[in-house]
Amino acid sequence: MLYLVGLGLGDAKDITVKGLEVVRRAKWVFLEAYTSILTCGKDALEEFYGREVILADRDMVEQESDAIFKDAKEEDIAFLVVGDPFGATTHSDLVLRAIELDIPYKVIHNASIMNAVGCCGLQLYNFGETVSVVFWTDDWKPDSYYDKIAANREKGWHTLCLLDIKVKEQSIENLMKGRKIYEPPRYMTVKQAAEQFLEIVQKKKEQGAEKQAIEEDTICVGLARIGTDTQQIAAGTLTQLAETDMGGPLHSLVIPGHMHPLEIDMLRHFAIDRESFDTSVHVEE
Amino acid sequence: MLYLVGLGLGDAKDITVKGLEVVRRAKWVFLEAYTSILTCGKDALEEFYGREVILADRDMVEQESDAIFKDAKEEDIAFLVVGDPFGATTHSDLVLRAIELDIPYKVIHNASIMNAVGCCGLQLYNFGETVSVVFWTDDWKPDSYYDKIAANREKGWHTLCLLDIKVKEQSIENLMKGRKIYEPPRYMTVKQAAEQFLEIVQKKKEQGAEKQAIEEDTICVGLARIGTDTQQIAAGTLTQLAETDMGGPLHSLVIPGHMHPLEIDMLRHFAIDRESFDTSVHVEE
Repeated sequence: MLYLVGLGLGDAKDITVKGLEVVRRAKWVFLEAYTSILTCGKDALEEFYGREVILADRDMVEQESDAIFKDAKEEDIAFLVVGDPFGATTHSDLVLRAIELDIPYKVIHNASIMNAVGCCGLQLYNFGETVSVVFWTDDWKPDSYYDKIAANREKGWHTLCLLDIKVKEQSIENLMKGRKIYEPPRYMTVKQAAEQFLEIVQKKKEQGAEKQAIEEDTICVGLARIGTDTQQIAAGTLTQLAETDMGGPLHSLVIPGHMHPLEIDMLRHFAIDRESFDTSVHVEE
Repeated sequence: MLYLVGLGLGDAKDITVKGLEVVRRAKWVFLEAYTSILTCGKDALEEFYGREVILADRDMVEQESDAIFKDAKEEDIAFLVVGDPFGATTHSDLVLRAIELDIPYKVIHNASIMNAVGCCGLQLYNFGETVSVVFWTDDWKPDSYYDKIAANREKGWHTLCLLDIKVKEQSIENLMKGRKIYEPPRYMTVKQAAEQFLEIVQKKKEQGAEKQAIEEDTICVGLARIGTDTQQIAAGTLTQLAETDMGGPLHSLVIPGHMHPLEIDMLRHFAIDRESFDTSVHVEE
């Protein structure tokens, strides 16, 4: 049996009791290590589980999944995923290959940012489509997520923005020379994302857009390390968030749509500055 | 410290290790027992935790939260919620009251249907607003969720429909006479929800609507007891789902929007009938 086990968001102890039982009895334990990051490190997992954990990088999962499936017909194999196993497309792919090979599978769910984001007080069922915000380069500055957020806001819905993660990326030089030398991992911060948004807002203004879906004083919510002991939530204008350092990864950003009074009451407790928060919320209404 | 602890979706062992530690050391352990249901029963929880669990019904949480908060300033109090603590509005309310009373709180997240629904193969970030489908009565047949689903589908997004739960409801007679006698709990099934949808589709047709957002042969996904060992997923036309018995609660229904090839590949494995599935998917494209 192939078990896809969600690890949740924080540390080793965020695994479920059921998940832990699987890990402890499995023949092999793989850890997916490229669509998200662990905040606690592989060593801490190994110590807590009392098991060796094999890092499965993108190459392994996409090209060498045979290694993962090798014993899965007769034995229990655990494939660990930070958050929930169905947060990222790649794991559907893995399940499909398991089905093709006639390998039974089971999912042990856990929290992911997709539902834990509710802790900021915005109601989960009022979220629209989720968007991804990627790192810009000098000559590639995609901003199509702006239109998606605009479409959500038009309907009154909140938008969760997943911020880019660059793990095991190669420089163009190393890629061309076929050298497996990887750049240090990079995780987009709320500050960086807010700066990108401001640049887009500025560009739209220069292009003559009148009423915009997002303005400099639109209330947004920065989330950092949700589910860990050091989690931070900051509600403020886009400009304020572009000036706010929320510490280490992972970060996410929410652009609220229409907010109900209870949502505003909760969010106010995370305001960077309550006075400007109330002003901005009032303007939006 | 007030701990809001998510229990996940299945049985007692779906609590996280961190959550279990809190439950075992807390002075009091409350279980929220009205926005969702436990599939395993309170006794099974008590046995597994080795702790007495106090059922907190709606009256207690909304009107007598003092009982929950009584010792929370000095001691650890655990408030257990099926799924994740931020699935339902009521728990924001509880947190706000804790903040007002200067009681620190912490959330221990877990899976909820809001993210576990990804196990059917439809990508979480392509879901739009979530809707609630309530039981109809003879003279109250709300169908506003239809327009919300239509709005989602127009954008190409999937819709998760949360199906009604009636727990501790009083009949009008008992309510008027002030008798605390409660009706047996009722949980809407996929079959019942699909029947409602068909009735709305029929009504819209009679009113002369031409192209509709949902038709009898629209592919939908029924989900039952997600996260448990007996979970079932069934993909089929609305008509097929209205004829399908998916067993005991809890059920949810998904109306897909635009599906990517990988999503279709996954969903096909859950098709009630692959041939009609392929036909309907093809028509939609």
